[in-house]
Amino acid sequence: MLDRELALVESNLRSVLSSDVGLLRTAADLLILAGGKRLRPTILLLAYHAAGGGEARAAEDTRATEDTRAVESLADKRDNAVADNRAIADNAVEDNRAVEDNRGAVSLATAVELLHTASLVHDDINDKSELRRGQATINARWGDGLALLVGDFVFVRLLGLLATCSPREIRILGDCCTAVVEGETLQMLHRGDWGMDEALYLAIARRKTASLFAACGELGAIAAAGTEEQIAALAEYGENLGVAFQIQDDTLDLVGQEEVLGKPVFLDLDHGSVGLAAQYALEREAGAVEILRAGNRAQITRMLQDSGALAYAARTACAFIGRARSALAVLPDSQARDELQRLAEYVIIRDR
Amino acid sequence: MLDRELALVESNLRSVLSSDVGLLRTAADLLILAGGKRLRPTILLLAYHAAGGGEARAAEDTRATEDTRAVESLADKRDNAVADNRAIADNAVEDNRAVEDNRGAVSLATAVELLHTASLVHDDINDKSELRRGQATINARWGDGLALLVGDFVFVRLLGLLATCSPREIRILGDCCTAVVEGETLQMLHRGDWGMDEALYLAIARRKTASLFAACGELGAIAAAGTEEQIAALAEYGENLGVAFQIQDDTLDLVGQEEVLGKPVFLDLDHGSVGLAAQYALEREAGAVEILRAGNRAQITRMLQDSGALAYAARTACAFIGRARSALAVLPDSQARDELQRLAEYVIIRDR
Repeated sequence: MLDRELALVESNLRSVLSSDVGLLRTAADLLILAGGKRLRPTILLLAYHAAGGGEARAAEDTRATEDTRAVESLADKRDNAVADNRAIADNAVEDNRAVEDNRGAVSLATAVELLHTASLVHDDINDKSELRRGQATINARWGDGLALLVGDFVFVRLLGLLATCSPREIRILGDCCTAVVEGETLQMLHRGDWGMDEALYLAIARRKTASLFAACGELGAIAAAGTEEQIAALAEYGENLGVAFQIQDDTLDLVGQEEVLGKPVFLDLDHGSVGLAAQYALEREAGAVEILRAGNRAQITRMLQDSGALAYAARTACAFIGRARSALAVLPDSQARDELQRLAEYVIIRDR
Repeated sequence: MLDRELALVESNLRSVLSSDVGLLRTAADLLILAGGKRLRPTILLLAYHAAGGGEARAAEDTRATEDTRAVESLADKRDNAVADNRAIADNAVEDNRAVEDNRGAVSLATAVELLHTASLVHDDINDKSELRRGQATINARWGDGLALLVGDFVFVRLLGLLATCSPREIRILGDCCTAVVEGETLQMLHRGDWGMDEALYLAIARRKTASLFAACGELGAIAAAGTEEQIAALAEYGENLGVAFQIQDDTLDLVGQEEVLGKPVFLDLDHGSVGLAAQYALEREAGAVEILRAGNRAQITRMLQDSGALAYAARTACAFIGRARSALAVLPDSQARDELQRLAEYVIIRDR
C-alpha cells in the first residue's frame, strides 16, 4: 500500500543527497542504490496511515502518480526536493487535502532514513566494517577520513528537511538523534565489558536503535494529526519493535548466513559488543567468558545453544513484539494497522 | 557590548551539551572550557545589533542581568536551555520586545558555535591533530572512534535549537552545514594537489570557512528583522571576512608561533593542504614543489618570503577585508557597525 509513498522517499533521498562534489554524489548514489529494507520510512508511513493520515487518498491514484513522475524528473536538482515537492503539490492538487498531508509524512520518512544512513556510515568506520548490504562500505572504498565526511554530509542534508517540520517534529527528531549518538557511545564504552547486565544491554538498545523506531511511530502519527493517545501508542509500538529488532540483529550476528545478511557474521562479537544471548550466557554459564574470548565460532554457537541463551534471546524479542502489537489495540481497524502487526512479526523472523 | 549575550551563549552551550553519558559530558565540558574566540557568535550578535536588533535593550540592564543569572542557574539542566530561556523570558519580561528578539539571536549564535565546534572535532580526527587551543584534542584523549561520536553529539544537539527557528533560518543553517562538509571534502580530495589554482583554493575557502561566517551575518540580520538590503550586506560582510580569515589561518600555519596558536604549525602543509601563499609560490617559482616536498620548515618559510608569496597572501586577505568593510556601508551608524569594522581588521592582524 505504500509503493507510491516509498517511491517518493526514494526520489527525495536522491535529490537531497545530490552534490556538485563528485565523491559525495557517488557515495550517496551507492548508499541509496544499495537499498536496504527502508524499514524506518515504512514504519513511519504505516503509522501515518494507521493514525488516519491520507484517508482520502485512494480516489487520487492518477493524480498521485503524476506527482511522483513530476517529482522524479526533479531528482537531479539539488536541495529543493521538498520545496519542489511542495510547489508541485500546491499548484496541482490544492484541492486534495490527503496528498498535502502525505507530503509531511514523506518528508519525515526521508529524514529518518537519512539519519539511519548517516549513522550506518559512521558505525562502519568505528566497526572497521568492509561489507554492508553486499557492497564495499564507504570506509572500505575511500578510507576513514572521507567516510567520516560522507556520514556528516548525509546527516547535514537532513537539516534542510526540517524547514518544513513543526517545532514538535523537530524536537522529536533532535531528541532521537541525540539518543542514537548517546547509545552508540555507551556501546563503544562497553566494548569488551563481559560483566554487562541485561538492564544495561536493554538501555543501550533503547537508545541506539529503539529511539529511532519510536520516533518513526510518533512522527507518523503526528503527521497524520492523530490523537495524543494514537501518537503515544505508535511511539510505544516503535520503541518495543526497536528493542526486538536489536535483539534479533545481535542474534543474526551469531547465527545468520553471511550471503543472506550481506555482511560478515561475528562482527559485533569480534569487537567486544555483547548481545543479549551472550550476556545471558555470561551471567549463567561458568566458562562462557573463556569460550567467548577464545573466539572459536562453532564452539560459541554451541555454547549459546546448549545454555539456552539463544532461546532466551528469542523469547525476549518475542515479548517485546507482543508489547508492540498490544500497543496497536487503541488504533481503529485499518489495512495499515494490519501491516504494522505483520511487520512486527517479520522483525523477529527475518534472516537479514 | 555583547558581554551579556555571549554569557547567555556560554550557558546555552553548557546546557545543550549536557548528557547523562559521562564521556560526552566530560568531552563537552572540555570543548566549552577550552573557550576559543567565539568569533562566529560575536559576528552573529554584532550583525543582529547592526541591523537594528535589541535597540530598546540599554534601558533593560538590570532585567537582563537577572535573566542571565536565572538562565545560568539552569545550566546543569539538559536539553531545555532554549525552552527554559524562553519560559523565563515569557514570564519575566513579556513587556520587553528587545529581550525577546535577542533570544532568537542568542539561540542562533549558540547554533553556529555548535556547528563550528562539531566540525573542529571531526577535523582534528582527519588531520590527526593532537593539540587544539593548547589542550589535547578529543581524538588524542579518547581515540578516533569516540571522537567521531563526540563530534556527532555536538552536531546533533544543534537540531533541538532549530525548533525555535523560522524555516528561512533553518534553510540557511542547513545550506551552511552542507557547504562546510562539501568544502572539507574538497579540501581532503585535494591534499597533496600541488597544481591547485587560486580559483580552486578560494572556492574551498568559501565553502569550508566563509559559508559559516556569511550565515552568521545573514542570520543576525534576519533575527533583527533587518531589511533585505541589510541581510544581503551582512551576508556579504561575513563571506568576505571568512575568506580573509581562512587565508590568515593558512598563513599562521606557516609563520605563526605555536605557543600563541595553541597548536603546532606546519600542520596543514604536512597534510598536503596548500594555502594561498604556497599556491602562489607553486605557480610562479621553479623549484617550489621540491622545497615544499622536502619539508624543511626554515627553507619553506624563506622561499615563501623571498618569492613574495606571503606578501601576496596578505594583500589578498586585505582586499577581502576591504570588501567586507565596504559591504557595511548600507547599514546605519551604530556601535555594532563600528565593532564589525574593527573585527574585520582583527581577522587579518590576529596571531592566533
